[in-house]
Amino acid sequence: MTDTTARLLINCPDAPGIVSAVSSFLFAHGANITDLDQHATAPTGGTYFMRLELQTAAIRIDREALEAAFEAEVASRFQMSWQLTYAVDRKRVAILVSKHDHAMMELLWRWSRGTLPCEIVAVISNHADLREAVEGFGVAFHHVPISAETKALAEATLEEKLSGVDLIVLARYMQILSADFTARWPHRIINIHHSFLPAFVGANPYQQAYDKGVKLIGATAHYVTADLDQGPIIEQDVERVSHRDEVDSLRDMGQDVERQVLARAVRWHLEDRVLVHGTKTIVFA
Amino acid sequence: MTDTTARLLINCPDAPGIVSAVSSFLFAHGANITDLDQHATAPTGGTYFMRLELQTAAIRIDREALEAAFEAEVASRFQMSWQLTYAVDRKRVAILVSKHDHAMMELLWRWSRGTLPCEIVAVISNHADLREAVEGFGVAFHHVPISAETKALAEATLEEKLSGVDLIVLARYMQILSADFTARWPHRIINIHHSFLPAFVGANPYQQAYDKGVKLIGATAHYVTADLDQGPIIEQDVERVSHRDEVDSLRDMGQDVERQVLARAVRWHLEDRVLVHGTKTIVFA
Amino acid sequence: MTDTTARLLINCPDAPGIVSAVSSFLFAHGANITDLDQHATAPTGGTYFMRLELQTAAIRIDREALEAAFEAEVASRFQMSWQLTYAVDRKRVAILVSKHDHAMMELLWRWSRGTLPCEIVAVISNHADLREAVEGFGVAFHHVPISAETKALAEATLEEKLSGVDLIVLARYMQILSADFTARWPHRIINIHHSFLPAFVGANPYQQAYDKGVKLIGATAHYVTADLDQGPIIEQDVERVSHRDEVDSLRDMGQDVERQVLARAVRWHLEDRVLVHGTKTIVFA
Amino acid sequence: MTDTTARLLINCPDAPGIVSAVSSFLFAHGANITDLDQHATAPTGGTYFMRLELQTAAIRIDREALEAAFEAEVASRFQMSWQLTYAVDRKRVAILVSKHDHAMMELLWRWSRGTLPCEIVAVISNHADLREAVEGFGVAFHHVPISAETKALAEATLEEKLSGVDLIVLARYMQILSADFTARWPHRIINIHHSFLPAFVGANPYQQAYDKGVKLIGATAHYVTADLDQGPIIEQDVERVSHRDEVDSLRDMGQDVERQVLARAVRWHLEDRVLVHGTKTIVFA
Repeated sequence: MTDTTARLLINCPDAPGIVSAVSSFLFAHGANITDLDQHATAPTGGTYFMRLELQTAAIRIDREALEAAFEAEVASRFQMSWQLTYAVDRKRVAILVSKHDHAMMELLWRWSRGTLPCEIVAVISNHADLREAVEGFGVAFHHVPISAETKALAEATLEEKLSGVDLIVLARYMQILSADFTARWPHRIINIHHSFLPAFVGANPYQQAYDKGVKLIGATAHYVTADLDQGPIIEQDVERVSHRDEVDSLRDMGQDVERQVLARAVRWHLEDRVLVHGTKTIVFA
Repeated sequence: MTDTTARLLINCPDAPGIVSAVSSFLFAHGANITDLDQHATAPTGGTYFMRLELQTAAIRIDREALEAAFEAEVASRFQMSWQLTYAVDRKRVAILVSKHDHAMMELLWRWSRGTLPCEIVAVISNHADLREAVEGFGVAFHHVPISAETKALAEATLEEKLSGVDLIVLARYMQILSADFTARWPHRIINIHHSFLPAFVGANPYQQAYDKGVKLIGATAHYVTADLDQGPIIEQDVERVSHRDEVDSLRDMGQDVERQVLARAVRWHLEDRVLVHGTKTIVFA
Repeated sequence: MTDTTARLLINCPDAPGIVSAVSSFLFAHGANITDLDQHATAPTGGTYFMRLELQTAAIRIDREALEAAFEAEVASRFQMSWQLTYAVDRKRVAILVSKHDHAMMELLWRWSRGTLPCEIVAVISNHADLREAVEGFGVAFHHVPISAETKALAEATLEEKLSGVDLIVLARYMQILSADFTARWPHRIINIHHSFLPAFVGANPYQQAYDKGVKLIGATAHYVTADLDQGPIIEQDVERVSHRDEVDSLRDMGQDVERQVLARAVRWHLEDRVLVHGTKTIVFA
Repeated sequence: MTDTTARLLINCPDAPGIVSAVSSFLFAHGANITDLDQHATAPTGGTYFMRLELQTAAIRIDREALEAAFEAEVASRFQMSWQLTYAVDRKRVAILVSKHDHAMMELLWRWSRGTLPCEIVAVISNHADLREAVEGFGVAFHHVPISAETKALAEATLEEKLSGVDLIVLARYMQILSADFTARWPHRIINIHHSFLPAFVGANPYQQAYDKGVKLIGATAHYVTADLDQGPIIEQDVERVSHRDEVDSLRDMGQDVERQVLARAVRWHLEDRVLVHGTKTIVFA
């Protein structure tokens, strides 16, 4: 990843000639395509998704001109929704957490070692417990208590603290955000749910898994929508368990899966690899 | 596995001294313990499960005397439910199948290569399509059509064909057996469900998985009870999929998982490794 | 996969404008790009690899004209090595096997169920044991015995039987082919080695794995070169084992891995997804 | 795990009656067996290994008397090597590290969260870089530089700092310990090697894996012996990679595998689950 890296995300009605039009435009503007993924949702007549990774010094000079030209010469012709992002513009991330620290710590740790390309601008929690751990990474910690009575007020405070943030990560945040709140952050809130969704929606999935006697436990990273635990799935993984495991050991083992799954999902989002199509994701990983 | 191999399965209220009592009895009767697994469902006051694998020439001489002595000297003292099985007495297995042949073929194939320790005495199908494939293995094939109107009669015919059978395997049998039928075969019918249960219960799980956009598909082998797709889970596994997969490719990939999962579950059952505790299994694998 | 599907494989020195040139050419000739993968072996100055999957009725009319135009208008400009294949032209495959049947059976079975897009024209073995199993699939079986003394002659017989074949699969063929032989089939012989290469090269890898006490066993599918077990790796996978496993159980479990790994590698080859770069492969899977 | 937990490890020539003798002794002394694993290295005439987990208040009263009785009544009869450990006596662990922090951080983190049952008494490094990270966990950090010339002296300093330590973990310690040093810590030094051993012994395994073009990379935790990278393997795992991965990304992905593999191996050692038999391990996990 260098400071000449840009990414072009496109979706439009499927049609012949898209690759040719896009790649010829980029070639003409001195951009070298270093990665290209495409997906059509049906053999014909579906929606077409494309992600290109580009290298070019040119994009640093005059982005606005480049973007205007792309809209005029290519995008308008194919009715494209599109977005050009620049790797140098690191996304601003806030983490929301309650008391369980494992998922948050994994993100902070990877970030501090340079493998999560973003700025983590704040960690916000409804408990004060993790302040020291967070501040040890040089990251701001905000304590925003929340209760049934104070929910509206607390969310207003959250919104204020989240001003300018590109991505919110719910790293085991044990509060349900209001539909109003989530509607203001479409496909910009990632949650880690500690089960293999759609199994074990809702509270206490490790207890549910134990009661059911499943032989694998899992974790699911998904975008948050107004429907609890129903947003588009980004990534999932599982771990083998047995009759010897109690709820506690499921929880311990599950935390390792949660860490890995959330870290992958967040990294893919930061690298603009996740596109949403209806209730599902397209992940160009 | 030799013809001196026996397996002792025990469950009883947990209490001190069980291992000592059982192992001392076996030692006194010339049996050598070659494998021993135990599980207590709670630290104290739970149910205790035990599986022992034994080697002894003695058991071939007078099983009845041995079993009577065990009941008198050990089992009655600890209120044990127990069962002693002999590897030479291979379980008699029947496979029920509809049109999809992959799960059935995997079983027949492993059996023909000597890695499934049982006798497969019959394959029964509600379609005639697989007769040739089955008979090629030297196994009897019965065509028992079934419809809503003929269900009771068909099940009676099934029961007749299944006389003397120890285990029924539903290798993608697309009919729902009646509660009466399943009640007569407790923990002796294994089904392969083509999803990671409890996700995607019921019909067409690959379509459900596609619609939901999950990133892993799975298969579940479980004992059949009157509650559809709800019996005790024996084994599960998953395979990674992506947005590129259509329902058809999910089905193709899923078949490989189904084959592996069902083959493992059936083998464990045949080796007396699966104990049932309420709605869950204990698998000493 | 329809009969309008073609695949274009390209490799050339990396340079700007390749995607644009290729996609514009295809668009101009009425071909719709349904899949596109590319890989450059270095950020700049490396080798560029590309695989496109196309749909077009046009290619059925006059392939020669299309290919000549591509050479003239695009390929020569970028010094491309390239190849255009048509899904309707199914590759002709021969399987070489000794006595272990599991890998061969997996291929025959998948092929008979329509999930391996090829023609299996023959199975050739240095033993006669598997004749019946092979002929049951309607495939020709040739018995070509081989010994140290008869090796040259036997290979000549093999060559004769392999006339017109596009791909040779060594499905546990326990003979070492001569350097002369393998040189005549570059990247057209796939072998399954029953270890996670480069660990346990040579004979009896399960014994080697047992002696070493590894905790995972594996299998490797690779193209065959004159260097034993050293050709470009196409696919690998592993399975967890433990101290309880003897050489025999490693072998049993390993056979399942071998089957899966070989089947994937062969399918990818048949779909033109495997490109070779020096001693390594690029797999657009 | 409570403070009444003890573990009994046994190895001896295989013989009839061992389970009976051991379990009857424990029952007579008021100990309740909560876990029991056994393994014989051959059907007859091999070595017998056993691990029992016990619960008893009695062991807290007079360990010496209990141990003397076991030796006299059981162990001497079967020529047992044996060891009785008490969960309350947490093992003392030192971590040796160079500059890569990921493996060390994983251990410190799990330990700080209570999931590694030990005392970490020191981290020792040949570089000073990680002092702050280590001391943040409240763990002593020692900087012991080492070079070809100072090796003997440096190892003497190490020995001094390691006085009283039960287990040394090489968490990417890039120095080769002398044969004299390792001989003084038999089966008490665990190393994490960043490849799937025996593939890629020695330096720079990710470069070796890249050059070979393997499709999976791995990590191996093993006891250290005088033979570099050849000691008994405790645990291994792998991760899928592709032609797209450069040496750098192999290293990044590999670090996740190293963390998991090392953490599992260290936990198993701390819970007395790893027994050594010649050049191999028996892991009762």
